[in-house]
Amino acid sequence: MDKDLKFAVLGGGSWATALIKMLTENLDNVIWYMRNPDAIGYIKIQGHNPNYLSSVALDLDKLQLTNTIDTAVSEADILIFAIPSAFLESELLKLTVPITDKIIFSAIKGIVPETGLIVGEHFHEKYHIPFENIGVITGPCHAEEVALERLSYLTIACADGKKAKLIAKNLNSHYIKTKITKDIIGTEYAAMLKNIYAVAAGIAHGLGYGDNFQSVLMSNAIREMKRFTKRIHNIDRNINESAYLGDLLVTGYSIFSRNRMFGNMIGKGYTVKSAMMEMNMVAEGYYATKSTYEIKSKLKKKVKTPIIDAVYEVLYEGKNAKKSFKALTNKLN
Amino acid sequence: MDKDLKFAVLGGGSWATALIKMLTENLDNVIWYMRNPDAIGYIKIQGHNPNYLSSVALDLDKLQLTNTIDTAVSEADILIFAIPSAFLESELLKLTVPITDKIIFSAIKGIVPETGLIVGEHFHEKYHIPFENIGVITGPCHAEEVALERLSYLTIACADGKKAKLIAKNLNSHYIKTKITKDIIGTEYAAMLKNIYAVAAGIAHGLGYGDNFQSVLMSNAIREMKRFTKRIHNIDRNINESAYLGDLLVTGYSIFSRNRMFGNMIGKGYTVKSAMMEMNMVAEGYYATKSTYEIKSKLKKKVKTPIIDAVYEVLYEGKNAKKSFKALTNKLN
Repeated sequence: MDKDLKFAVLGGGSWATALIKMLTENLDNVIWYMRNPDAIGYIKIQGHNPNYLSSVALDLDKLQLTNTIDTAVSEADILIFAIPSAFLESELLKLTVPITDKIIFSAIKGIVPETGLIVGEHFHEKYHIPFENIGVITGPCHAEEVALERLSYLTIACADGKKAKLIAKNLNSHYIKTKITKDIIGTEYAAMLKNIYAVAAGIAHGLGYGDNFQSVLMSNAIREMKRFTKRIHNIDRNINESAYLGDLLVTGYSIFSRNRMFGNMIGKGYTVKSAMMEMNMVAEGYYATKSTYEIKSKLKKKVKTPIIDAVYEVLYEGKNAKKSFKALTNKLN
Repeated sequence: MDKDLKFAVLGGGSWATALIKMLTENLDNVIWYMRNPDAIGYIKIQGHNPNYLSSVALDLDKLQLTNTIDTAVSEADILIFAIPSAFLESELLKLTVPITDKIIFSAIKGIVPETGLIVGEHFHEKYHIPFENIGVITGPCHAEEVALERLSYLTIACADGKKAKLIAKNLNSHYIKTKITKDIIGTEYAAMLKNIYAVAAGIAHGLGYGDNFQSVLMSNAIREMKRFTKRIHNIDRNINESAYLGDLLVTGYSIFSRNRMFGNMIGKGYTVKSAMMEMNMVAEGYYATKSTYEIKSKLKKKVKTPIIDAVYEVLYEGKNAKKSFKALTNKLN
């Protein structure tokens, strides 16, 4: 397992573009699938993605672009998915070729709405991919900083250490360091939960809470994340590693985070609907809040998640953000 | 122990001013000692500290101002010290009245240079204060946000839980929440160490590292803090509580932090001397780095502290910041 395995990246957004940049530092031929034929046309002529990370010079000699998902899936051995979880299943439904024997790595954060499962579980349950062929690529990593070649650390999770190493090796470069772990479930949940905490940070900021409170919120958030991931998948996990705490911080402290921005508007008094319209883009934390709340509600043994509960109340039960967060402050310490 | 005990705050800076504001929300008479008679004169007429948190309206009816430390120490039962650790001992040497029977709470971060001890230990060793009469008041808390009455959480540490509760009760208000702990050593060390990590964050920023790296740095810093405090005082401590992780984050992410600013100048190529001259103020992390490094070097059982080591090399051994941090990046994950 090595040289001969072919990689494909599926998705046309900024994270997909960053992955393409990283992989073409190491590989001579990478398949890149995206839906939009116009974007492909532009890339083939200009050597830049017109819509995302447009400063990145793409190495066209190393890229095989396609807008047919069948082509990507049938020709590649390793599929790296970087499609928003909300659109993943509708993409997969286009497939007419088998996917069961592929190695699947997810660079997606969140729950697949059609099944209510995290991405790895979705591929396992719905597409019968064995768990040893499923992995996760996670940050802390803003794609924008990959574009600038600013040093970033990725964590590659896979039950099969050899596959994790293979992916890690092909992502490494002078600006990317990687580590591997077997904790696919914990890293996937953490990547999703952090978006909810970023929404919470945004709401708090919008309500006028300051930096002192933000640090208390993050300190409580990581403890909540620890309890939650432990309840879902109880293994020996150091929640302060980069894939968990680092990922929480890079999102929770980013003023560019869509989730934080969305929360900020809610805190300032926008309704959920108008905040979404105003932003004109999807805040993953919005969907993650609902999925997580539902997963939590189904747990036999309860877990204390005051932050997730407060965000849920505000986003889905129409509760007043000021009141909900005031109540939340009494549950933090 | 309650109503009749009299409080004094010692120090004239922003943290002392914030403590005075918090205490006078609850107490009708607080002694406030500061060296500068001009500042006292100004406060008595204007009701504002001319030099720090000058927006805060001080309740003069509740304040007993003095520039004689003997007066404060002899008249008060509970002394809250908010004097920079570098100047603490020279203040204490002025005393001609006994201090041994007082309750001492430290709101100071850092090591007393004359003895190389953290503040609590200094009072115990040099002034024979029993440990049950020594405590710590710690954040995460920017004094500036107290001035704005933005919700902040303090941790009050004392081996004697009753005394911790008493202090906590008198600091609480609609913008201050408190929790108590017995971990005076861990909270004091954490409060010092976070300043070193803030210097590190500043150096990294000055060198051009971005937000992805910053989150990895903080994630490694909290793990390093856990190892270090465990080696110094091995108790069952959740390093993700606000007094440890929260305090690290509020400083490490603050662009107003003197420590971060100082580090940033070093990263940008200033020498230590010129950065200090340019800033015209003391970055506590500078002294903390030396003290911590020395404490670490004397430990019988070693502890891995790559971040502290890198900052020490740069600040005290004249090593090139770019090279030292490049080497550091290989030790983080």
